[in-house]
Amino acid sequence: MVIVADNIHIMNPMVAKAIRDLDPEPIKDIAGRCEDAVAEIIDINPGPLPKNGEKGMAFLVEAVQEVTNLRLSLDTGNPENLEAGLRACQRKPIINGFSLEPRKLKEILPLAVEFQTDIVGFLLSPDGQVPSNSEERLDIALRLVEEAERAGVSLERLIIDPIVVPIIWEDGCRQAKEVLSTLKLLPELLGFAVSTIVGLSNLTSGSPCQRKRLLLEEVYLSMLAESGLNMALLNVFHKRTVKVARICDSIIGSRIFSWAEI
Amino acid sequence: MVIVADNIHIMNPMVAKAIRDLDPEPIKDIAGRCEDAVAEIIDINPGPLPKNGEKGMAFLVEAVQEVTNLRLSLDTGNPENLEAGLRACQRKPIINGFSLEPRKLKEILPLAVEFQTDIVGFLLSPDGQVPSNSEERLDIALRLVEEAERAGVSLERLIIDPIVVPIIWEDGCRQAKEVLSTLKLLPELLGFAVSTIVGLSNLTSGSPCQRKRLLLEEVYLSMLAESGLNMALLNVFHKRTVKVARICDSIIGSRIFSWAEI
Repeated sequence: MVIVADNIHIMNPMVAKAIRDLDPEPIKDIAGRCEDAVAEIIDINPGPLPKNGEKGMAFLVEAVQEVTNLRLSLDTGNPENLEAGLRACQRKPIINGFSLEPRKLKEILPLAVEFQTDIVGFLLSPDGQVPSNSEERLDIALRLVEEAERAGVSLERLIIDPIVVPIIWEDGCRQAKEVLSTLKLLPELLGFAVSTIVGLSNLTSGSPCQRKRLLLEEVYLSMLAESGLNMALLNVFHKRTVKVARICDSIIGSRIFSWAEI
Repeated sequence: MVIVADNIHIMNPMVAKAIRDLDPEPIKDIAGRCEDAVAEIIDINPGPLPKNGEKGMAFLVEAVQEVTNLRLSLDTGNPENLEAGLRACQRKPIINGFSLEPRKLKEILPLAVEFQTDIVGFLLSPDGQVPSNSEERLDIALRLVEEAERAGVSLERLIIDPIVVPIIWEDGCRQAKEVLSTLKLLPELLGFAVSTIVGLSNLTSGSPCQRKRLLLEEVYLSMLAESGLNMALLNVFHKRTVKVARICDSIIGSRIFSWAEI
Protein backbone atom coordinates (compact mmCIF):
# COMPACT_ATOMS: atom_id res chain seq x y z
CA MET A 1 0.00 0.00 0.00
CA VAL A 2 1.36 3.37 -1.00
CA ILE A 3 1.34 5.72 1.97
CA VAL A 4 0.41 9.31 1.18
CA ALA A 5 1.13 11.79 3.99
CA ASP A 6 -1.81 14.07 4.80
CA ASN A 7 0.33 16.14 7.17
CA ILE A 8 0.63 19.31 5.10
CA HIS A 9 -2.94 20.40 5.61
CA ILE A 10 -4.48 23.80 6.22
CA MET A 11 -6.16 22.43 9.37
CA ASN A 12 -2.72 22.17 10.97
CA PRO A 13 -2.25 25.65 12.54
CA MET A 14 1.49 25.54 11.81
CA VAL A 15 0.77 25.01 8.13
CA ALA A 16 -1.86 27.78 8.08
CA LYS A 17 0.54 30.23 9.70
CA ALA A 18 3.40 29.27 7.38
CA ILE A 19 1.17 29.94 4.36
CA ARG A 20 0.11 33.32 5.76
CA ASP A 21 3.72 34.29 6.45
CA LEU A 22 5.11 32.56 3.34
CA ASP A 23 7.62 31.04 5.75
CA PRO A 24 8.99 27.81 4.22
CA GLU A 25 10.72 26.50 7.35
CA PRO A 26 7.74 24.86 9.09
CA ILE A 27 6.66 23.29 5.78
CA LYS A 28 10.17 22.00 5.13
CA ASP A 29 10.29 20.58 8.63
CA ILE A 30 7.01 18.71 8.22
CA ALA A 31 7.94 17.46 4.74
CA GLY A 32 11.30 16.17 5.96
CA ARG A 33 9.64 14.37 8.84
CA CYS A 34 7.07 12.86 6.46
CA GLU A 35 9.91 11.39 4.42
CA ASP A 36 11.58 10.07 7.57
CA ALA A 37 8.25 8.47 8.50
CA VAL A 38 8.38 6.59 5.18
CA ALA A 39 5.70 8.51 3.31
CA GLU A 40 5.95 7.73 -0.40
CA ILE A 41 3.86 10.69 -1.54
CA ILE A 42 3.17 14.01 0.20
CA ASP A 43 -0.30 15.50 -0.17
CA ILE A 44 -0.50 19.28 -0.07
CA ASN A 45 -3.87 20.60 1.04
CA PRO A 46 -3.87 24.39 1.30
CA GLY A 47 -7.62 24.73 1.81
CA PRO A 48 -9.53 27.35 -0.17
CA LEU A 49 -6.74 29.99 0.02
CA PRO A 50 -9.04 32.99 -0.45
CA LYS A 51 -6.15 35.43 -0.90
CA ASN A 52 -3.14 34.94 -3.18
CA GLY A 53 -4.09 31.33 -3.69
CA GLU A 54 -1.83 30.73 -6.66
CA LYS A 55 1.15 32.17 -4.84
CA GLY A 56 0.32 30.14 -1.74
CA MET A 57 0.10 26.86 -3.63
CA ALA A 58 3.36 27.45 -5.51
CA PHE A 59 5.00 28.43 -2.21
CA LEU A 60 3.98 25.13 -0.61
CA VAL A 61 5.17 23.05 -3.55
CA GLU A 62 8.51 24.84 -3.62
CA ALA A 63 9.00 24.57 0.13
CA VAL A 64 8.37 20.83 0.11
CA GLN A 65 10.64 20.31 -2.90
CA GLU A 66 13.48 22.03 -1.08
CA VAL A 67 13.81 19.07 1.28
CA THR A 68 12.48 16.02 -0.53
CA ASN A 69 12.24 14.38 -3.93
CA LEU A 70 9.06 12.57 -2.95
CA ARG A 71 6.14 12.75 -5.32
CA LEU A 72 3.48 15.33 -4.47
CA SER A 73 -0.30 15.20 -4.49
CA LEU A 74 -1.95 18.59 -5.06
CA ASP A 75 -5.12 18.54 -3.02
CA THR A 76 -7.28 21.45 -4.08
CA GLY A 77 -10.51 21.98 -5.98
CA ASN A 78 -9.48 25.44 -7.15
CA PRO A 79 -8.27 25.17 -10.76
CA GLU A 80 -6.16 28.35 -10.71
CA ASN A 81 -4.37 27.36 -7.52
CA LEU A 82 -3.96 23.83 -8.82
CA GLU A 83 -2.41 25.06 -12.06
CA ALA A 84 0.03 27.27 -10.16
CA GLY A 85 1.01 24.24 -8.10
CA LEU A 86 1.41 22.08 -11.19
CA ARG A 87 3.71 24.66 -12.79
CA ALA A 88 5.87 24.69 -9.65
CA CYS A 89 6.28 20.90 -9.57
CA GLN A 90 9.66 19.54 -10.61
CA ARG A 91 8.28 15.99 -10.93
CA LYS A 92 4.86 14.87 -12.10
CA PRO A 93 2.47 15.09 -9.16
CA ILE A 94 -0.96 13.64 -8.60
CA ILE A 95 -4.00 15.89 -8.98
CA ASN A 96 -6.34 15.27 -6.03
CA GLY A 97 -8.84 15.43 -7.64
CA PHE A 98 -11.90 15.68 -9.84
CA SER A 99 -15.49 14.42 -9.74
CA LEU A 100 -18.63 14.50 -11.86
CA GLU A 101 -19.31 18.06 -10.67
CA PRO A 102 -19.47 20.08 -13.92
CA ARG A 103 -16.87 22.63 -12.84
CA LYS A 104 -14.41 19.90 -11.91
CA LEU A 105 -14.92 18.13 -15.24
CA LYS A 106 -14.43 21.38 -17.12
CA GLU A 107 -11.58 22.97 -15.22
CA ILE A 108 -9.71 20.28 -13.26
CA LEU A 109 -9.78 17.20 -15.47
CA PRO A 110 -8.14 18.93 -18.49
CA LEU A 111 -5.17 19.86 -16.29
CA ALA A 112 -4.38 16.16 -15.90
CA VAL A 113 -4.16 15.93 -19.67
CA GLU A 114 -2.15 19.12 -20.07
CA PHE A 115 0.36 18.20 -17.36
CA GLN A 116 0.20 14.43 -18.01
CA THR A 117 -0.39 13.65 -14.35
CA ASP A 118 -2.25 10.96 -12.46
CA ILE A 119 -5.56 12.20 -11.12
CA VAL A 120 -7.84 11.12 -8.30
CA GLY A 121 -11.51 10.71 -9.21
CA PHE A 122 -13.93 11.09 -6.28
CA LEU A 123 -17.03 8.91 -6.26
CA LEU A 124 -19.36 11.84 -5.65
CA SER A 125 -22.59 12.68 -7.47
CA PRO A 126 -22.63 15.54 -10.03
CA ASP A 127 -23.90 17.84 -7.28
CA GLY A 128 -21.08 16.83 -4.94
CA GLN A 129 -23.07 14.51 -2.69
CA VAL A 130 -21.79 11.27 -1.17
CA PRO A 131 -23.51 8.24 -2.76
CA SER A 132 -25.66 6.26 -0.39
CA ASN A 133 -24.37 2.79 -1.25
CA SER A 134 -21.94 0.69 -3.21
CA GLU A 135 -24.23 0.43 -6.25
CA GLU A 136 -24.36 4.20 -6.64
CA ARG A 137 -20.60 4.41 -6.15
CA LEU A 138 -19.99 1.85 -8.90
CA ASP A 139 -22.32 3.70 -11.26
CA ILE A 140 -20.40 6.91 -10.63
CA ALA A 141 -17.10 5.09 -11.15
CA LEU A 142 -18.23 4.01 -14.60
CA ARG A 143 -19.17 7.59 -15.46
CA LEU A 144 -15.86 8.92 -14.12
CA VAL A 145 -13.99 6.45 -16.32
CA GLU A 146 -16.04 7.60 -19.33
CA GLU A 147 -15.29 11.24 -18.57
CA ALA A 148 -11.60 10.55 -18.06
CA GLU A 149 -11.38 8.67 -21.35
CA ARG A 150 -13.32 11.37 -23.18
CA ALA A 151 -10.94 14.02 -21.81
CA GLY A 152 -7.94 11.98 -22.95
CA VAL A 153 -6.71 10.71 -19.56
CA SER A 154 -5.30 7.22 -19.97
CA LEU A 155 -6.94 4.90 -17.48
CA GLU A 156 -3.75 3.87 -15.70
CA ARG A 157 -3.56 7.52 -14.62
CA LEU A 158 -6.90 7.31 -12.82
CA ILE A 159 -7.05 6.73 -9.07
CA ILE A 160 -10.52 6.17 -7.61
CA ASP A 161 -11.46 7.57 -4.18
CA PRO A 162 -14.68 5.85 -3.01
CA ILE A 163 -15.21 8.50 -0.28
CA VAL A 164 -14.95 7.51 3.35
CA VAL A 165 -17.38 9.43 5.57
CA PRO A 166 -17.35 10.04 9.33
CA ILE A 167 -18.50 7.01 11.29
CA ILE A 168 -20.59 9.34 13.44
CA TRP A 169 -22.86 10.08 10.47
CA GLU A 170 -26.24 8.47 10.94
CA ASP A 171 -25.34 5.81 8.37
CA GLY A 172 -21.58 5.98 9.00
CA CYS A 173 -21.02 2.28 9.75
CA ARG A 174 -23.06 1.20 6.76
CA GLN A 175 -21.16 3.66 4.55
CA ALA A 176 -17.86 2.25 5.82
CA LYS A 177 -19.03 -1.18 4.72
CA GLU A 178 -20.25 0.13 1.35
CA VAL A 179 -16.78 1.55 0.70
CA LEU A 180 -15.28 -1.90 1.34
CA SER A 181 -17.78 -3.49 -1.06
CA THR A 182 -16.99 -0.84 -3.67
CA LEU A 183 -13.27 -1.56 -3.47
CA LYS A 184 -13.86 -5.27 -3.90
CA LEU A 185 -16.20 -4.85 -6.88
CA LEU A 186 -14.39 -2.08 -8.79
CA PRO A 187 -11.75 -4.15 -10.64
CA GLU A 188 -14.28 -6.57 -12.04
CA LEU A 189 -16.75 -3.83 -12.93
CA LEU A 190 -14.20 -1.67 -14.69
CA GLY A 191 -12.32 -4.57 -16.23
CA PHE A 192 -8.92 -3.37 -15.09
CA ALA A 193 -6.99 -3.14 -11.82
CA VAL A 194 -7.82 0.48 -11.11
CA SER A 195 -5.79 2.22 -8.42
CA THR A 196 -7.71 3.30 -5.35
CA ILE A 197 -7.16 5.73 -2.49
CA VAL A 198 -9.06 6.86 0.61
CA GLY A 199 -8.60 9.64 3.12
CA LEU A 200 -8.45 7.57 6.30
CA SER A 201 -8.94 10.35 8.85
CA ASN A 202 -12.34 11.20 7.35
CA LEU A 203 -13.67 8.14 9.18
CA THR A 204 -12.99 9.60 12.61
CA SER A 205 -13.73 13.29 12.01
CA GLY A 206 -15.39 14.82 15.01
CA SER A 207 -14.08 12.41 17.63
CA PRO A 208 -12.34 14.09 20.53
CA CYS A 209 -10.26 11.09 21.64
CA GLN A 210 -7.02 10.47 19.78
CA ARG A 211 -6.53 6.96 21.18
CA LYS A 212 -9.97 5.85 20.01
CA ARG A 213 -9.60 7.56 16.64
CA LEU A 214 -6.36 5.75 15.95
CA LEU A 215 -7.74 2.35 16.95
CA LEU A 216 -10.76 2.77 14.68
CA GLU A 217 -8.56 3.96 11.81
CA GLU A 218 -6.22 0.99 12.21
CA VAL A 219 -9.05 -1.53 12.13
CA TYR A 220 -10.58 0.11 9.08
CA LEU A 221 -7.23 0.41 7.30
CA SER A 222 -6.76 -3.35 7.73
CA MET A 223 -10.19 -3.98 6.24
CA LEU A 224 -9.52 -1.57 3.38
CA ALA A 225 -6.25 -3.34 2.59
CA GLU A 226 -8.03 -6.68 2.62
CA SER A 227 -10.58 -5.22 0.20
CA GLY A 228 -7.89 -4.20 -2.28
CA LEU A 229 -7.02 -0.59 -1.44
CA ASN A 230 -3.74 0.55 -3.09
CA MET A 231 -3.06 3.93 -1.54
CA ALA A 232 -3.91 5.46 1.83
CA LEU A 233 -3.87 9.15 2.70
CA LEU A 234 -3.04 9.29 6.40
CA ASN A 235 -1.09 11.04 9.13
CA VAL A 236 2.35 9.44 8.84
CA PHE A 237 3.33 10.76 12.26
CA HIS A 238 0.99 8.16 13.73
CA LYS A 239 3.62 5.45 13.93
CA ARG A 240 1.30 2.61 14.84
CA THR A 241 -0.93 3.35 11.83
CA VAL A 242 2.10 3.15 9.55
CA LYS A 243 3.02 -0.17 11.17
CA VAL A 244 -0.50 -1.41 10.47
CA ALA A 245 -0.05 -0.49 6.80
CA ARG A 246 3.23 -2.44 6.77
CA ILE A 247 1.58 -5.51 8.31
CA CYS A 248 -1.19 -5.29 5.71
CA ASP A 249 1.42 -5.22 2.96
CA SER A 250 3.00 -8.38 4.36
CA ILE A 251 -0.27 -10.29 4.57
CA ILE A 252 -2.02 -9.00 1.46
CA GLY A 253 0.89 -7.84 -0.67
CA SER A 254 4.41 -9.10 -1.14
CA ARG A 255 6.26 -7.21 1.59
CA ILE A 256 8.52 -9.50 3.60
CA PHE A 257 7.26 -9.68 7.17
CA SER A 258 9.63 -8.65 9.89
CA TRP A 259 8.96 -8.41 13.61
CA ALA A 260 11.63 -5.71 13.70
CA GLU A 261 9.54 -3.47 11.48
CA ILE A 262 6.40 -3.38 13.60
CA MET B 1 -18.32 -11.90 15.90
CA VAL B 2 -18.68 -14.36 18.73
CA ILE B 3 -15.74 -14.07 21.10
CA VAL B 4 -14.46 -17.33 22.52
CA ALA B 5 -12.05 -16.95 25.44
CA ASP B 6 -8.87 -19.00 25.08
CA ASN B 7 -7.79 -18.16 28.62
CA ILE B 8 -8.34 -21.53 30.26
CA HIS B 9 -5.39 -23.21 28.59
CA ILE B 10 -2.80 -25.65 29.86
CA MET B 11 -0.05 -23.27 28.72
CA ASN B 12 -1.12 -20.87 31.47
CA PRO B 13 0.92 -22.08 34.49
CA MET B 14 -1.92 -21.16 36.87
CA VAL B 15 -4.26 -23.43 34.93
CA ALA B 16 -1.71 -26.24 34.82
CA LYS B 17 -1.17 -26.03 38.58
CA ALA B 18 -4.91 -25.87 39.30
CA ILE B 19 -5.43 -29.06 37.27
CA ARG B 20 -2.59 -30.81 39.11
CA ASP B 21 -4.00 -29.78 42.48
CA LEU B 22 -7.64 -30.14 41.43
CA ASP B 23 -8.06 -26.67 42.93
CA PRO B 24 -11.10 -24.99 41.38
CA GLU B 25 -10.43 -21.48 42.69
CA PRO B 26 -7.94 -20.29 40.02
CA ILE B 27 -10.17 -21.72 37.28
CA LYS B 28 -13.24 -20.03 38.73
CA ASP B 29 -11.33 -16.77 38.95
CA ILE B 30 -10.27 -16.91 35.30
CA ALA B 31 -13.73 -17.97 34.12
CA GLY B 32 -15.38 -15.12 36.03
CA ARG B 33 -12.97 -12.63 34.55
CA CYS B 34 -13.61 -14.03 31.05
CA GLU B 35 -17.31 -13.36 31.50
CA ASP B 36 -16.57 -9.84 32.78
CA ALA B 37 -14.45 -9.31 29.67
CA VAL B 38 -17.53 -10.13 27.57
CA ALA B 39 -16.51 -13.57 26.36
CA GLU B 40 -19.54 -15.35 24.94
CA ILE B 41 -18.02 -18.83 25.04
CA ILE B 42 -15.20 -20.20 27.19
CA ASP B 43 -12.81 -22.67 25.60
CA ILE B 44 -11.29 -25.26 27.91
CA ASN B 45 -7.97 -26.61 26.70
CA PRO B 46 -6.44 -29.01 29.21
CA GLY B 47 -3.66 -30.21 26.94
CA PRO B 48 -2.97 -33.96 26.67
CA LEU B 49 -3.60 -34.64 30.41
CA PRO B 50 -1.50 -37.81 30.56
CA LYS B 51 -2.72 -38.75 34.05
CA ASN B 52 -6.33 -38.81 35.19
CA GLY B 53 -7.39 -37.02 32.05
CA GLU B 54 -11.08 -37.76 32.40
CA LYS B 55 -11.11 -36.51 35.97
CA GLY B 56 -9.13 -33.42 34.98
CA MET B 57 -11.48 -32.48 32.16
CA ALA B 58 -14.59 -32.97 34.29
CA PHE B 59 -12.96 -30.93 37.07
CA LEU B 60 -12.36 -28.02 34.67
CA VAL B 61 -15.90 -28.08 33.30
CA GLU B 62 -17.37 -28.17 36.79
CA ALA B 63 -15.14 -25.40 38.08
CA VAL B 64 -16.08 -23.09 35.22
CA GLN B 65 -19.78 -23.89 35.60
CA GLU B 66 -19.63 -22.90 39.25
CA VAL B 67 -19.22 -19.25 38.28
CA THR B 68 -20.75 -18.79 34.85
CA ASN B 69 -23.56 -19.96 32.62
CA LEU B 70 -21.56 -19.21 29.49
CA ARG B 71 -21.37 -21.87 26.85
CA LEU B 72 -18.23 -24.01 26.88
CA SER B 73 -15.97 -25.25 24.14
CA LEU B 74 -14.15 -28.49 24.97
CA ASP B 75 -10.78 -28.26 23.31
CA THR B 76 -9.17 -31.67 23.33
CA GLY B 77 -8.33 -34.36 20.83
CA ASN B 78 -8.58 -37.13 23.44
CA PRO B 79 -11.96 -38.84 23.07
CA GLU B 80 -12.10 -40.23 26.61
CA ASN B 81 -11.30 -36.89 28.19
CA LEU B 82 -13.72 -35.19 25.82
CA GLU B 83 -16.51 -37.56 26.74
CA ALA B 84 -15.89 -36.99 30.45
CA GLY B 85 -16.11 -33.26 29.81
CA LEU B 86 -19.30 -33.66 27.79
CA ARG B 87 -20.92 -35.63 30.60
CA ALA B 88 -20.03 -32.89 33.06
CA CYS B 89 -21.56 -30.09 30.95
CA GLN B 90 -24.86 -28.68 32.15
CA ARG B 91 -25.49 -26.95 28.80
CA LYS B 92 -24.61 -28.13 25.32
CA PRO B 93 -21.00 -27.21 24.64
CA ILE B 94 -18.99 -27.08 21.43
CA ILE B 95 -16.61 -29.92 20.63
CA ASN B 96 -13.29 -28.41 19.47
CA GLY B 97 -12.86 -30.41 17.34
CA PHE B 98 -12.41 -33.07 14.67
CA SER B 99 -10.57 -33.40 11.36
CA LEU B 100 -10.11 -35.93 8.56
CA GLU B 101 -7.60 -37.82 10.72
CA PRO B 102 -9.09 -41.34 10.95
CA ARG B 103 -9.01 -41.47 14.76
CA LYS B 104 -10.85 -38.15 14.99
CA LEU B 105 -13.50 -39.29 12.53
CA LYS B 106 -14.00 -42.53 14.38
CA GLU B 107 -13.83 -41.40 18.00
CA ILE B 108 -14.55 -37.64 18.16
CA LEU B 109 -17.16 -37.00 15.48
CA PRO B 110 -19.68 -39.56 16.85
CA LEU B 111 -19.63 -37.74 20.21
CA ALA B 112 -21.14 -34.67 18.50
CA VAL B 113 -24.03 -36.89 17.40
CA GLU B 114 -24.39 -38.63 20.74
CA PHE B 115 -24.36 -35.36 22.72
CA GLN B 116 -26.06 -33.27 20.00
CA THR B 117 -23.40 -30.57 20.16
CA ASP B 118 -21.86 -28.19 17.68
CA ILE B 119 -18.44 -29.32 16.52
CA VAL B 120 -15.43 -27.56 15.05
CA GLY B 121 -13.93 -29.15 11.93
CA PHE B 122 -10.27 -28.37 11.33
CA LEU B 123 -9.12 -27.95 7.75
CA LEU B 124 -6.23 -30.38 8.17
CA SER B 125 -5.23 -33.23 5.90
CA PRO B 126 -6.01 -36.84 6.93
CA ASP B 127 -2.48 -37.09 8.32
CA GLY B 128 -2.91 -33.91 10.35
CA GLN B 129 -0.90 -31.59 8.12
CA VAL B 130 -1.76 -27.95 7.40
CA PRO B 131 -2.91 -27.51 3.78
CA SER B 132 -0.60 -25.37 1.68
CA ASN B 133 -3.23 -23.12 0.11
CA SER B 134 -6.85 -22.12 -0.12
CA GLU B 135 -7.69 -24.69 -2.79
CA GLU B 136 -6.53 -27.55 -0.59
CA ARG B 137 -8.43 -26.08 2.36
CA LEU B 138 -11.64 -25.89 0.34
CA ASP B 139 -11.22 -29.48 -0.83
CA ILE B 140 -10.82 -30.60 2.78
CA ALA B 141 -13.86 -28.54 3.80
CA LEU B 142 -16.00 -30.44 1.29
CA ARG B 143 -14.75 -33.73 2.66
CA LEU B 144 -15.37 -32.61 6.26
CA VAL B 145 -18.95 -31.72 5.34
CA GLU B 146 -19.41 -35.15 3.75
CA GLU B 147 -18.04 -36.88 6.84
CA ALA B 148 -20.19 -34.79 9.15
CA GLU B 149 -23.32 -35.55 7.13
CA ARG B 150 -22.46 -39.25 6.96
CA ALA B 151 -22.02 -39.33 10.74
CA GLY B 152 -25.39 -37.63 11.22
CA VAL B 153 -24.22 -34.15 12.26
CA SER B 154 -26.60 -31.54 10.90
CA LEU B 155 -24.64 -28.94 8.99
CA GLU B 156 -25.73 -25.97 11.09
CA ARG B 157 -23.80 -27.69 13.90
CA LEU B 158 -20.55 -27.57 11.95
CA ILE B 159 -18.00 -24.80 12.57
CA ILE B 160 -15.04 -24.69 10.19
CA ASP B 161 -11.55 -23.75 11.43
CA PRO B 162 -9.35 -22.95 8.40
CA ILE B 163 -6.16 -23.19 10.54
CA VAL B 164 -4.11 -20.08 11.16
CA VAL B 165 -0.37 -20.81 11.32
CA PRO B 166 2.47 -18.78 12.85
CA ILE B 167 3.48 -15.88 10.67
CA ILE B 168 7.11 -16.80 11.32
CA TRP B 169 6.68 -20.01 9.33
CA GLU B 170 8.52 -19.79 6.03
CA ASP B 171 5.22 -19.31 4.20
CA GLY B 172 3.41 -17.71 7.15
CA CYS B 173 2.30 -14.54 5.38
CA ARG B 174 1.05 -16.44 2.36
CA GLN B 175 -0.79 -18.86 4.62
CA ALA B 176 -2.42 -15.94 6.43
CA LYS B 177 -3.70 -14.72 3.08
CA GLU B 178 -4.86 -18.21 2.07
CA VAL B 179 -6.95 -18.39 5.24
CA LEU B 180 -8.64 -15.11 4.27
CA SER B 181 -9.37 -16.45 0.78
CA THR B 182 -10.75 -19.66 2.26
CA LEU B 183 -13.15 -17.74 4.50
CA LYS B 184 -14.41 -15.71 1.56
CA LEU B 185 -14.92 -18.72 -0.70
CA LEU B 186 -16.39 -21.21 1.80
CA PRO B 187 -20.05 -20.07 1.80
CA GLU B 188 -20.34 -20.22 -1.98
CA LEU B 189 -18.48 -23.51 -2.23
CA LEU B 190 -20.54 -25.22 0.45
CA GLY B 191 -23.78 -23.57 -0.55
CA PHE B 192 -24.66 -22.47 2.97
CA ALA B 193 -23.46 -19.85 5.45
CA VAL B 194 -21.17 -22.14 7.40
CA SER B 195 -19.90 -20.89 10.75
CA THR B 196 -16.17 -20.29 11.00
CA ILE B 197 -13.64 -19.91 13.80
CA VAL B 198 -9.90 -19.35 14.09
CA GLY B 199 -7.42 -19.46 16.94
CA LEU B 200 -6.01 -15.95 16.65
CA SER B 201 -2.95 -16.38 18.85
CA ASN B 202 -1.60 -19.11 16.56
CA LEU B 203 -0.57 -16.31 14.18
CA THR B 204 1.94 -14.86 16.61
CA SER B 205 3.28 -18.00 18.29
CA GLY B 206 6.95 -17.66 18.97
CA SER B 207 7.14 -13.89 19.14
CA PRO B 208 8.69 -12.58 22.31
CA CYS B 209 7.16 -9.09 22.17
CA GLN B 210 3.63 -8.75 23.53
CA ARG B 211 3.08 -5.29 22.02
CA LYS B 212 3.97 -6.48 18.53
CA ARG B 213 1.98 -9.70 18.89
CA LEU B 214 -1.14 -7.76 19.82
CA LEU B 215 -0.78 -5.30 16.95
CA LEU B 216 -0.37 -8.10 14.42
CA GLU B 217 -3.33 -10.01 15.89
CA GLU B 218 -5.52 -6.90 15.74
CA VAL B 219 -4.72 -6.23 12.10
CA TYR B 220 -5.37 -9.83 11.17
CA LEU B 221 -8.57 -10.02 13.21
CA SER B 222 -9.88 -7.02 11.25
CA MET B 223 -9.04 -8.75 7.97
CA LEU B 224 -10.62 -11.99 9.16
CA ALA B 225 -13.81 -10.15 10.09
CA GLU B 226 -13.87 -8.48 6.69
CA SER B 227 -13.50 -11.94 5.12
CA GLY B 228 -16.54 -13.28 6.94
CA LEU B 229 -15.22 -14.90 10.13
CA ASN B 230 -18.00 -15.58 12.68
CA MET B 231 -16.13 -16.64 15.80
CA ALA B 232 -12.71 -15.82 17.19
CA LEU B 233 -10.82 -17.75 19.84
CA LEU B 234 -8.67 -15.16 21.61
CA ASN B 235 -7.35 -13.92 24.93
CA VAL B 236 -10.23 -11.82 26.23
CA PHE B 237 -7.97 -10.17 28.79
CA HIS B 238 -6.39 -8.27 25.89
CA LYS B 239 -8.81 -5.38 26.08
CA ARG B 240 -7.74 -3.68 22.88
CA THR B 241 -8.23 -6.90 20.89
CA VAL B 242 -11.77 -7.17 22.23
CA LYS B 243 -12.35 -3.54 21.22
CA VAL B 244 -11.12 -4.38 17.73
CA ALA B 245 -13.66 -7.20 17.55
CA ARG B 246 -16.39 -4.74 18.62
CA ILE B 247 -15.36 -2.25 15.92
CA CYS B 248 -15.41 -5.03 13.34
CA ASP B 249 -18.94 -5.94 14.41
CA SER B 250 -20.03 -2.34 13.90
CA ILE B 251 -18.53 -2.04 10.43
CA ILE B 252 -19.21 -5.55 9.10
CA GLY B 253 -22.10 -6.65 11.28
CA SER B 254 -25.03 -4.88 12.80
CA ARG B 255 -23.61 -3.75 16.13
CA ILE B 256 -24.37 -0.10 16.85
CA PHE B 257 -21.12 1.86 16.89
CA SER B 258 -20.31 3.75 20.06
CA TRP B 259 -17.17 5.73 20.83
CA ALA B 260 -17.81 4.90 24.48
CA GLU B 261 -17.33 1.21 23.81
CA ILE B 262 -13.86 1.41 22.28
